[in-house]
Amino acid sequence: MTEEIRDLVIAGSGVAGLSAAVYAARADLEPLVLEGDEPGGQLTLTTDVENYLGFPEGVGGMELIQRGKEQAEQFGAEFRHGSIGSAELDGQPLELSLSTGETLRTRALIVATGASARWVGAEGEDELMGYGLSTCATCDGAFHRGDDVLVVGGGDSAMEEALFLAKFADSVTVVHRRDELRASEIMADRARGDEDIEFAWNTELAAIDGSQEEGVTGATLVSHTDGYPAEKYEAGDDVEVQEVDVGGVFYAIGHEPNTDFLRDTPVALDDAGYVRTTSVGDAWATTATAADGVFAAGDVMDREYQQAVTAAGMGSMAALDTEEWLESVEAVSADSTGSIATEADD
Amino acid sequence: MTEEIRDLVIAGSGVAGLSAAVYAARADLEPLVLEGDEPGGQLTLTTDVENYLGFPEGVGGMELIQRGKEQAEQFGAEFRHGSIGSAELDGQPLELSLSTGETLRTRALIVATGASARWVGAEGEDELMGYGLSTCATCDGAFHRGDDVLVVGGGDSAMEEALFLAKFADSVTVVHRRDELRASEIMADRARGDEDIEFAWNTELAAIDGSQEEGVTGATLVSHTDGYPAEKYEAGDDVEVQEVDVGGVFYAIGHEPNTDFLRDTPVALDDAGYVRTTSVGDAWATTATAADGVFAAGDVMDREYQQAVTAAGMGSMAALDTEEWLESVEAVSADSTGSIATEADD
Repeated sequence: MTEEIRDLVIAGSGVAGLSAAVYAARADLEPLVLEGDEPGGQLTLTTDVENYLGFPEGVGGMELIQRGKEQAEQFGAEFRHGSIGSAELDGQPLELSLSTGETLRTRALIVATGASARWVGAEGEDELMGYGLSTCATCDGAFHRGDDVLVVGGGDSAMEEALFLAKFADSVTVVHRRDELRASEIMADRARGDEDIEFAWNTELAAIDGSQEEGVTGATLVSHTDGYPAEKYEAGDDVEVQEVDVGGVFYAIGHEPNTDFLRDTPVALDDAGYVRTTSVGDAWATTATAADGVFAAGDVMDREYQQAVTAAGMGSMAALDTEEWLESVEAVSADSTGSIATEADD
Repeated sequence: MTEEIRDLVIAGSGVAGLSAAVYAARADLEPLVLEGDEPGGQLTLTTDVENYLGFPEGVGGMELIQRGKEQAEQFGAEFRHGSIGSAELDGQPLELSLSTGETLRTRALIVATGASARWVGAEGEDELMGYGLSTCATCDGAFHRGDDVLVVGGGDSAMEEALFLAKFADSVTVVHRRDELRASEIMADRARGDEDIEFAWNTELAAIDGSQEEGVTGATLVSHTDGYPAEKYEAGDDVEVQEVDVGGVFYAIGHEPNTDFLRDTPVALDDAGYVRTTSVGDAWATTATAADGVFAAGDVMDREYQQAVTAAGMGSMAALDTEEWLESVEAVSADSTGSIATEADD
């Protein structure tokens, strides 16, 4: 009974996974890409991408993903539905149990499962995400010159988004459920010091108005007059309901890295659940994780930048790191038993 | 007398500089891009780029650069001829003396001046670079399936290129001027262990044959029968001249980072002259250098990957890091004299 052992599985089919697939396929590693629960990843939620280098007229988020997938397939990458439910990453070969019930064995794994932005749960958000509702001010702020916009959140990233948006928007209102910010003092001070930024305390975003044709046109805010609500708003609570005219809404209540399947593995995660990769001295970081043969790229390991073009860059790095690692394993193995080298050398 | 102080100058107009320019211009930093001695950078030497995510049919190196420049200009980036001759980076504002004689003052600088691959000096190389002659096996190896190819060099990167090429090419001959490799033991062993890799010792590449239409068709090798030559080959030396049929030639004799103008500044360089950037703990690295307000991106700080897509990613990171830094400086300054904030706040 011989089971197939693959050289490389790539978990995730967003920008990082696709770029890794292009590089790995071109290097003849015949990668298998698991598309994950949200094929194409976060970028599929973005209508226009203006800042990915190479597209002077911009490119649709979904279109960029489709072009990338086509490119990876052209070099022989294989795509399959499903995601990793659990994984044995303690030794060779790595064993991946998929959501489909299937088990895969592979020498190397690139984790490119991304991070999902948290959504508020407001009415209309499913329809309007990518059409005036956004989870990324850096990406979409420039579309809102002269608009009034809302930022939902109270942490450092909400302050960053608000400050960034204040450059473009006529006014920015930070909508926060509490009566004080969770942000660091310095970020909170900067936001408070900006005359274009206002704050709506003890306030929830209940609904977003608009359409995919017109974009966001307004929102419904619910203010709890007796302070921070312990529970989500329900009819009958002591609240003020306010309709506001806004041209954009930005969610900044955090991201959730998709790393649950790594909890009981040697792959090290940080406090927020992001994959830790190694750095070489104080020079450039590599994409290697704490587990042998496991590499990571994109939003799942990048808390800081989370851009399409940075994810593409890191995907390429992960494939190059993987290729070098596979080659070193083959060389060692050729010195001893030759078994892995034989299998991989065809 | 008021002299203009810019927010941001970007030195270099390759992929890293262009991606930084797109992000910085979109963030309203009105960047000035100095095009440098080789406008467009290393990518302009590449005919077809197959591995930059988003172009399933591939894209010309020059075309990608032109598209990127157009994109940056669309958001208001300004381009100017010239490069930095020397720089005062000890305090604010930074002062840059250009090759044109002009002096620029700026709060922030992104160094994206790249690294230039060393060329051998063989006859025909000017005409054939990008047409079968390449300085990057990862980029161009896949074009040489079934070819016989040469790799010129004897260090680790030459071994890496040879091993990578051996997957595609029928045969790889490493052409080396000495009779032993400079490569590390492990890399040398791997290359020697690959049956598709041969070595031509005490040998120089004298000429490359071919045309831009046909690509590389052959090469002239000069072997010094009395061992490693102290001087470059001259007529009359005791040599064997050999014509070989090859379909590709790869130079792997190193890169030279373009950092001469940083020698007497606080920006830290490594032994080989590459810019050192900081890493945050063992998490992801940032693009900050040892000098306040100076950031770096692309091949000038990346010895390891040097890909178009990684450089684009790092350019974006540098712009985001710069933007955050400028904002922090403005905030501090607003607390004290308000002078920088006033100037920057228009």
